Amino acid sequence: MPAPEMSPGPAAEVERLAARAAGAARLMAGAGRREKDAFLLDLAGRIAAGADELKKTNSKDIERARLDGRPPAFLDRLTLSDKVLSAMIQGLEDVAALEDPVGSMEGMTVRPNGLKVGRVRIPLGVIGFIYESRPNVTVDAAALCLKAGNAVILKGGSEALESNLALGRLISQSLGRTGLPEAAAQVVPLADRAAVRALLKLDRYLDLVIPRGGEALIRSVTETARMPVLKHYKGVCHLFVDQGCDHDMARSLALNAKVQRPGVCNALETLLVHRAEAETFLPPAARELSKAGVELRCCPASLALIEGGLPAKEEDWPAEYLDLILSVRVVDDLDQALDHIAAYGSHHTEAICTKDYARAERFLREVDASVVLVNASTRFNDGGQLGLGAEIGISTDKLHAYGPMGLKELTTTKFVVYGQGQVRD
Amino acid sequence: MPAPEMSPGPAAEVERLAARAAGAARLMAGAGRREKDAFLLDLAGRIAAGADELKKTNSKDIERARLDGRPPAFLDRLTLSDKVLSAMIQGLEDVAALEDPVGSMEGMTVRPNGLKVGRVRIPLGVIGFIYESRPNVTVDAAALCLKAGNAVILKGGSEALESNLALGRLISQSLGRTGLPEAAAQVVPLADRAAVRALLKLDRYLDLVIPRGGEALIRSVTETARMPVLKHYKGVCHLFVDQGCDHDMARSLALNAKVQRPGVCNALETLLVHRAEAETFLPPAARELSKAGVELRCCPASLALIEGGLPAKEEDWPAEYLDLILSVRVVDDLDQALDHIAAYGSHHTEAICTKDYARAERFLREVDASVVLVNASTRFNDGGQLGLGAEIGISTDKLHAYGPMGLKELTTTKFVVYGQGQVRD
Repeated sequence: MPAPEMSPGPAAEVERLAARAAGAARLMAGAGRREKDAFLLDLAGRIAAGADELKKTNSKDIERARLDGRPPAFLDRLTLSDKVLSAMIQGLEDVAALEDPVGSMEGMTVRPNGLKVGRVRIPLGVIGFIYESRPNVTVDAAALCLKAGNAVILKGGSEALESNLALGRLISQSLGRTGLPEAAAQVVPLADRAAVRALLKLDRYLDLVIPRGGEALIRSVTETARMPVLKHYKGVCHLFVDQGCDHDMARSLALNAKVQRPGVCNALETLLVHRAEAETFLPPAARELSKAGVELRCCPASLALIEGGLPAKEEDWPAEYLDLILSVRVVDDLDQALDHIAAYGSHHTEAICTKDYARAERFLREVDASVVLVNASTRFNDGGQLGLGAEIGISTDKLHAYGPMGLKELTTTKFVVYGQGQVRD
Repeated sequence: MPAPEMSPGPAAEVERLAARAAGAARLMAGAGRREKDAFLLDLAGRIAAGADELKKTNSKDIERARLDGRPPAFLDRLTLSDKVLSAMIQGLEDVAALEDPVGSMEGMTVRPNGLKVGRVRIPLGVIGFIYESRPNVTVDAAALCLKAGNAVILKGGSEALESNLALGRLISQSLGRTGLPEAAAQVVPLADRAAVRALLKLDRYLDLVIPRGGEALIRSVTETARMPVLKHYKGVCHLFVDQGCDHDMARSLALNAKVQRPGVCNALETLLVHRAEAETFLPPAARELSKAGVELRCCPASLALIEGGLPAKEEDWPAEYLDLILSVRVVDDLDQALDHIAAYGSHHTEAICTKDYARAERFLREVDASVVLVNASTRFNDGGQLGLGAEIGISTDKLHAYGPMGLKELTTTKFVVYGQGQVRD
């Protein structure tokens, strides 16, 4: 009697999947814009046609999460509602409308020996995308990775596994239907953490990993991964209200940056106010912020000026609240503001409100953050807002991409050299 | 009686050094080209004036290595000869003549809401440079990192420690003399491996690590490092001799790529010959290569055509010989050549010799290597040769820099946004 077949274990299963992705990436690199856009639009149609089926599958994930006692906000993120499905379809159409970065040539020059040297834009290869509970990210991330000519391995939260697998099947069907390799997008069919750990060792297959989620997930991915990781840990964003600035503008920037969507990484977390403006700026600004439901945690100087303010503790300065909470500090001058940002900022987004040319230029030059703004809300650190067309994430790593990452950041360049028999002396 | 002061241990010492580097990096980011070039030229003068002293210090390292029984080639690499010192001085002058990439603005656009968005080029921050026995690398690497506005931490081979420390002192003196922070370049004053391991954990201070040396060194750095690493493991470079190509050109390319400097990463390791050309191309090409001292390791088809050839084993195809050895394989067509390169290549440098337009374009498009050449020697994968001015290394990682890395690759960009009070809807 033959021995029962052994289960291969998550490491072997993930490795097989990664090897298939690498094979698919070679084919994807040669795919033209026409095929890639046809795939995106086919998938949009397939999601629209399969909406009821998707919602049925999704309801199983939701039911299981409910039984596990997950809170309502978690269940909400997990749900493929009609609104979420429409946004996915719109997203696919938007990505299809974007220019294909692959194949464009940059800066062709002729060397003294006649060699013509240029850089041509190529896909990165295989991208691992590791995310938490929203199943719509499966489609959003796949669309951008594939349009840029990459293969993608998708590992979402285990609570969304059924939904992700259903979306993954639709993606592969659309790939196959439009002549692209089905293995160019694969959802990892395993729920355990061993699968992620195994994936992160496979630097011979994966060219990049992008983790999206909480700081704990991102730290654990960064510590395990052998391949490059693009990520940001958190966004501790500041607005510096400079001496002599327009108070109405500063108030409007602070309010927008804190209140418009407090749960995101480019929301404001700390307001720095020049000492010369504190007395006239802070009381009305604080009233407006309080009216919008914002709790203010204040340094001693600002606490004296703000009715209902709470004293800030040391742990407030590096905090990313992601909530209607704002820390406030009065600073002596631009230097102290710059020192505060260097000490507590997260290299994400920093803004100054000023009328002074020299201080505006100094702030832009000296602040080390992926996006630095003068007289604009921190909420503009976003690929769509800054003109990248779409966004796969925001990087506070300085290599490869610093700031929002669009299609172009999912590619790289290789050198091509046209010779006529040149050899080296 | 007070307890004797404890030695802080390598981890604490390295951390203190990294923190100093991060402080220096903030100042370096604001340094202008004038100061940076003044530093480079001051250092060139200091090395010229201190040549005798440097050679005396260097002789201690050499003596110790000799007593340790190191081979002559090792002692040669370790030696700061007059020729090496002159090359270091020339290198400093060359880097001073290069344009400063920092501060240039790329692609400023205006968004529909009036925001002006651009990307300005900035230094990476703190670079860790880990290398083996050549002490001249201390100066070459520091020059490029500092000209690009970075701080650099230099960890060379322990056998060269005295020489590296002496060069590090000159670098710091020149930095101080020209108003730049002395801690912008620091030689790690420890010989043990624990120092490197500690350094590679400090991703909160170091933005990048560049290892230069043998494959074992590079693998160990990559597995330990928490920050991005730019490197190549090895260069297994191919030349494909296409059907109908110019045989004289193909022979000259093969000879140059294999023989001109066999010990370097862009030297040729495998010759792929189209079946239709093998009988007429291989015998005379092999004679010429043999005359130049090259040992040929041949597939069965080429073995039958090459006098004095040796049979190739499977382990020859992925081998980086770095020596006067060449593997030879006859292939059926371009497809088989592309498959061979995909299976055994190292994404470093690949070349085709051809007269055919379509196959040239297909080779350029489908080969996944940092530099792909038509009708030119693989030896041209070099920052100087490709017009980057100078080179800190060659990357076969696809992120940030794929291919030779010059000054620009030691920088990144941040977004700057000029607003007039814009907020997000």
